[in-house]
Amino acid sequence: MKITAGELCAILQGKLEGSADTLITHPAKIEDAGNGAVCFLANPKYLPYAYTTGASVLVVNESEVFTETLKPVLIRVPDAYAAFTSLLKQFGNTADQKKGIEQPVHIAASAVIASDAYIGAFTYIDEHVNIGKGVSVYPHCYIGAGCTIADGTTLHAGVYLYPKTRIGQRCIIHSGTVIGSDGFGFAPQADGSYQKIPQLGHVLIEDDVEIGACVTIDRATMGSTIIRSGVKLDNHIHIAHNVEIGAHTVIAAQTGVSGSTKIGKYCMIGGQVGFVGHITIADRSRINAQSGVSKSITREGKAWNGAPAFEYTASLRSQSVYRNLPQLQQQLNTLLQQKETDKDTHG
Amino acid sequence: MKITAGELCAILQGKLEGSADTLITHPAKIEDAGNGAVCFLANPKYLPYAYTTGASVLVVNESEVFTETLKPVLIRVPDAYAAFTSLLKQFGNTADQKKGIEQPVHIAASAVIASDAYIGAFTYIDEHVNIGKGVSVYPHCYIGAGCTIADGTTLHAGVYLYPKTRIGQRCIIHSGTVIGSDGFGFAPQADGSYQKIPQLGHVLIEDDVEIGACVTIDRATMGSTIIRSGVKLDNHIHIAHNVEIGAHTVIAAQTGVSGSTKIGKYCMIGGQVGFVGHITIADRSRINAQSGVSKSITREGKAWNGAPAFEYTASLRSQSVYRNLPQLQQQLNTLLQQKETDKDTHG
Amino acid sequence: MKITAGELCAILQGKLEGSADTLITHPAKIEDAGNGAVCFLANPKYLPYAYTTGASVLVVNESEVFTETLKPVLIRVPDAYAAFTSLLKQFGNTADQKKGIEQPVHIAASAVIASDAYIGAFTYIDEHVNIGKGVSVYPHCYIGAGCTIADGTTLHAGVYLYPKTRIGQRCIIHSGTVIGSDGFGFAPQADGSYQKIPQLGHVLIEDDVEIGACVTIDRATMGSTIIRSGVKLDNHIHIAHNVEIGAHTVIAAQTGVSGSTKIGKYCMIGGQVGFVGHITIADRSRINAQSGVSKSITREGKAWNGAPAFEYTASLRSQSVYRNLPQLQQQLNTLLQQKETDKDTHG
Repeated sequence: MKITAGELCAILQGKLEGSADTLITHPAKIEDAGNGAVCFLANPKYLPYAYTTGASVLVVNESEVFTETLKPVLIRVPDAYAAFTSLLKQFGNTADQKKGIEQPVHIAASAVIASDAYIGAFTYIDEHVNIGKGVSVYPHCYIGAGCTIADGTTLHAGVYLYPKTRIGQRCIIHSGTVIGSDGFGFAPQADGSYQKIPQLGHVLIEDDVEIGACVTIDRATMGSTIIRSGVKLDNHIHIAHNVEIGAHTVIAAQTGVSGSTKIGKYCMIGGQVGFVGHITIADRSRINAQSGVSKSITREGKAWNGAPAFEYTASLRSQSVYRNLPQLQQQLNTLLQQKETDKDTHG
Repeated sequence: MKITAGELCAILQGKLEGSADTLITHPAKIEDAGNGAVCFLANPKYLPYAYTTGASVLVVNESEVFTETLKPVLIRVPDAYAAFTSLLKQFGNTADQKKGIEQPVHIAASAVIASDAYIGAFTYIDEHVNIGKGVSVYPHCYIGAGCTIADGTTLHAGVYLYPKTRIGQRCIIHSGTVIGSDGFGFAPQADGSYQKIPQLGHVLIEDDVEIGACVTIDRATMGSTIIRSGVKLDNHIHIAHNVEIGAHTVIAAQTGVSGSTKIGKYCMIGGQVGFVGHITIADRSRINAQSGVSKSITREGKAWNGAPAFEYTASLRSQSVYRNLPQLQQQLNTLLQQKETDKDTHG
Repeated sequence: MKITAGELCAILQGKLEGSADTLITHPAKIEDAGNGAVCFLANPKYLPYAYTTGASVLVVNESEVFTETLKPVLIRVPDAYAAFTSLLKQFGNTADQKKGIEQPVHIAASAVIASDAYIGAFTYIDEHVNIGKGVSVYPHCYIGAGCTIADGTTLHAGVYLYPKTRIGQRCIIHSGTVIGSDGFGFAPQADGSYQKIPQLGHVLIEDDVEIGACVTIDRATMGSTIIRSGVKLDNHIHIAHNVEIGAHTVIAAQTGVSGSTKIGKYCMIGGQVGFVGHITIADRSRINAQSGVSKSITREGKAWNGAPAFEYTASLRSQSVYRNLPQLQQQLNTLLQQKETDKDTHG
């Protein structure tokens, strides 16, 4: 994709400073941009790069003040960060969207596939599957019997959907992700062995959900494991059976949620966090990375940290004393010895 | 599957209270059950739902006492939890078991496959593989040269077995799981780089093992990485080279076991636990979630917690003081100041 | 592969003690070796096995002194550990290297594949892919448009490369690994929902890199996520967008590196470690397992531990006091009570 600074300025409804004919060939980061690059500057930390960057065009905030003259053409906009996101979309959209059904594929007789869907080679679609308009299913996907995939959703290569999984509109699911595998349910027997508890439920994913690579979401024992609208899951996340993740909650990589736990809406959850099973997390909770959440959180909008997790600022205070523990112990020992000495002296 | 309350009661050998003709179409959780549903009630926590559930039939303990009349038909059994597991099995078994070999597949000339096995499309079976009776290999599996899969085992879609992997009877392995990948072994060189140590061993999985989705089990450097009978592994678990997991041990999701560590029988291991390499864990050990086990555990049947892990109840006491550390420091500071004051006064 | 003790001794340039005709059929661990096995002994911990092993041949250090006569034939070498690594290579190389293109595969018209490459069945190679000499791409791989794979690299079964991924020479990538998936980037909107920030960059992997099973490496937002030469990544590792891992750094399983973090050269990083985003880690840093690295590390060659991580030996001291916290609290309480008593007495 090639575009001039003037054309881009018109799209972004900004103000141009410099030559409208300057050619843009690609977006780049300001610190390593070269000729043809368009960059954005929103974080003041990166301001020094404005004077040294090799970029051809810079998208900056209207209010940005520069103390030296700049080499790049400037496009001033009300919100440079937001403008750049939409600019990236423009460049991203140029990849040709594939259409049609490649061969070989396995498509069961009873599967219904919208005429404009893309089905990549080596994908397996079982009986009674329903695939909506504009859906892209890349190669090597497995779509079990009775699954539904609603309009505009993309499954990247190598996504596995166990039977009866339901996926909403405009979702994006990355490679290596497994949805609908059996929940981890075993009944202990008298001899110490375990009997498998059949997992008969399914997974329900609502609209506008994005799921990273190598994520696993287990089917419910009965009923549904549910991922609500707008949820964003990073890579390597584990969602156990009968869990529910509330709308517009984001979870960073390698976090695990144990069975039947319900996480509220608009939560922000760091990476490598663990949740025990059968608890409820209030809306807008923020959980710091590597925390272990062992109890329900009932107060909305609070931040938590630690393993086991407790209130965020209190946990930072404990962390800070923790580093100091050897000194603290020494001070205490000194007091104890003085006590002994006092006793000997005054006793 | 449709069944009447009377028929189900006969199967469970229970006592019926209500109409034997009540139709059951599916099992459900008591809190969200509707018409046609059969539910179970074992946990007293869920007792209130008995009076409000929309279920048609409830399986309850013989001894259960209700203070109000209930809408659902009751089936009373000695152990409602156990009865429900077998009931779920009944409903689970109704999915038609696939048979035969779908096309296209790659099956090497020297592979031996039982006549009643199911081999899904796009599965790759290399030379000298042996696949037993009643085995199901779903689509997109890769079975390397010389692997054996014993009778009644199921490989879900997208399971990768490196050469010479041996899997026992009645195992279930979920999608995205990789068995037999090279162990992480590299010899440091004088210049700071690493030379790969070839990994020539294999993975041996005994009978009745269930392995979750996106699990990795590395082949031994020499000899075998071994998963003993009845082991249950949850999703995203990492088992390094030359590890051995004892019979009937269960491990929750995202746990990692480093090289050459041997875990005993009948252990229960939480999620996100880490084990260092070359240690031995005694039988019936219980390790709490997120623990870091850095030393061998020699006493059987004990519980452990923390990172590094130590005795469970002691670790809970340390956790409890940890939360209190800022106050503890303050108290100590007060004593130290008083000491200074005393010194100034009496000194 | 069969070889005599004499032949092996010549290859290793060692000194033989015993019959040169002794037949070797396989390498094994000294503690469970049988007839035909060759073992090595380098770690003094394993010395007792020298007297009991069933092995036919032992590779030992020149300087090793035995107090009893041994059953196995001995090959004495200057460095038994190094010799054994090269011996394992010999046995490992006997697996026939596959060549040619199996069917069915999908290879786009514009893809360029070296004549001696191996492309396994069910592999998908999109437009403008370039595959070098001696490359092995096992079955079920997905190679997105514009990827390049340099000479001598191996992709095991089920590796997914998103478009424009570039992989260097002599790399090994294990099954289930996903390279180039979208970074986890979302712009928060006024209503609490998130808008996807397009991820337009790619992943660049240099030479001699080994990547374990079920690893995910996300593409950069713009520019490159970079894995430098000689890096070794264990299973289940998550590398976020715009990360850079320095040359010859090794990372153990289940570790996660957040976006834009740069890790130096020759680092050693344990398993289950987490790095926050946008930090820099100095060369030759050593990070203990399960640590949480929340700040940049500027001093080279130091060891770190804990979550949040701090200097290694200091963290061990804090860990040690942590275990002792209940006693420490009790001692403090005693002092406080005595203070109260003293006050009452003397006040």
